[in-house]
Parts: sequence; structure tokens; C-alpha cells
Amino acid sequence: MKFRILGIEHIGIAQNTNSEQLSNFFSDILNLPNEREFVENQKVITEIFDTGAGKIELLYPSEESSVISKFLSKKGQSMHHIAILVDNIDELIKHLLSNGIKLINEKPQTGADNKKIIFIHPHSTPGMLLEFCQEI
Amino acid sequence: MKFRILGIEHIGIAQNTNSEQLSNFFSDILNLPNEREFVENQKVITEIFDTGAGKIELLYPSEESSVISKFLSKKGQSMHHIAILVDNIDELIKHLLSNGIKLINEKPQTGADNKKIIFIHPHSTPGMLLEFCQEI
Repeated sequence: MKFRILGIEHIGIAQNTNSEQLSNFFSDILNLPNEREFVENQKVITEIFDTGAGKIELLYPSEESSVISKFLSKKGQSMHHIAILVDNIDELIKHLLSNGIKLINEKPQTGADNKKIIFIHPHSTPGMLLEFCQEI
Repeated sequence: MKFRILGIEHIGIAQNTNSEQLSNFFSDILNLPNEREFVENQKVITEIFDTGAGKIELLYPSEESSVISKFLSKKGQSMHHIAILVDNIDELIKHLLSNGIKLINEKPQTGADNKKIIFIHPHSTPGMLLEFCQEI
């Protein structure tokens, strides 16, 4: 393999637009530092809490056509995806495709927190939506 | 706070007993090292894959009365919980209770991978089941 797996980067959790309770738990009860960001191409507002080793990323839809809106109306507030950090996402993509793994997008997109990201099609990883990301 | 948050320890993903596809993805495609363990008091077989920074814990029910069996019949194969590592779970419990946070069990139980664990009641963390753990 021409890439290295660097660890769990974050866990994404879908939250309703005006929901504050989970956010308050991480900020007020656990005192975790956090940053907000509007990711325009994903139509999502992210609120990222850093545990020191792995982040919790709360995902709020910025409009009704957001994939997070659709997810929330189907499943309600719940864990949405897990992201694993790699050092070379292009080599990872080649490796996955040559092993018959289905991707949602074969070209990396720009995600939150200054990352290049891809998502595995859940048919290849039943029970979870898996993102891979690389620092830009 | 008299405890420190050390990071995301693992993500638990419920899997049907004979399901092998997600396990094969982590072992054969990503080459992650893994260990299996039978956690008798939880009625669960765990298969833990280490990403190097955070683990993926696949959870298979060992019998029908397992909480994982009930979870699977309600939600199907999906992300079950997130576990955050702390250095002093007893101080964490005091801190959470004094802030009105509801726990599923107020006394730590013994979990997989040689840990003391507690679970937050999901009423306090809407959208996720949150475990805290400490190395024994």
C-alpha cells in the first residue's frame, strides 16, 4: 500500500438546526475547544470539538436540500459518518478501486477543516458511512 | 475538573452475527491489525481494529438477549456508540452527576479491552450513545 492510515480524524453526528443540547454537553460539561465552519459545497454548518485525539463534528444542515436534512428526516439526530485520516488520498483511492470498493465520489472533494475527502459507498462497508480525508 | 480527556478510544458498530463484509474491509483492504474478544457480561463478541489513533470495534451479539441483538432488530447494522478515554472515571462520574447528566449505570462496569466503562443516558446526549472508559 502506497499510503498510510493515520487514525480516526473525526466522527460526524447529524443534529437538527436549533438543537443545542449535545453542543452544550461538549462545550460546557466537557470543556472541549470548538470551532464553527460553514461548508458551502456540502450545505452544512459544522461545529468541531477536539478531544485531543480525534474530533467530534456536529453537522447542522444549512438548507433543506442538504444531505444532512434528508438524513435527519429519515433517521433523526444520530451518528452520520466516521472519518479516517490518510497521508495520500490519491493512492488510497487507487487501492480501493483496484480492490472493487465502491466510492460515492471518485475524485476528492473539499470538506470541512481544510481537508480533501472521499466517501465509501455504504454497500462496501455495511453499517457505516466511512469518509477518508487528507490534510490539504 | 479532576480528570483529563485523553481522546476518542473507539467507535462501536453493531454487526449481525454472520456478517463478514465490514470486518473483511478493515482486515483485508485496510490491513488493520485486529483482536477478537468475548465480553461475557455484555453478551457481545467484539472485533477491534486499531487505526493507530482510535479503534473500530465491531460488536456481534453472542445471544438473543444481548442489547446488541435488540439494537440490531430495531436499527439494523449501524454505528452503536462512541467511547472517550479519560484518566479518572470516578472523578468524571462525580463531575457528570453534579452537572445533572444522566448515566445508564452510575458504577463503572468492566468492558472489552481491559477497561472500566460507563454509558451516558442518551437523553443527555441526543443523537449519540456515549461511553467513557479508563484503562484498568
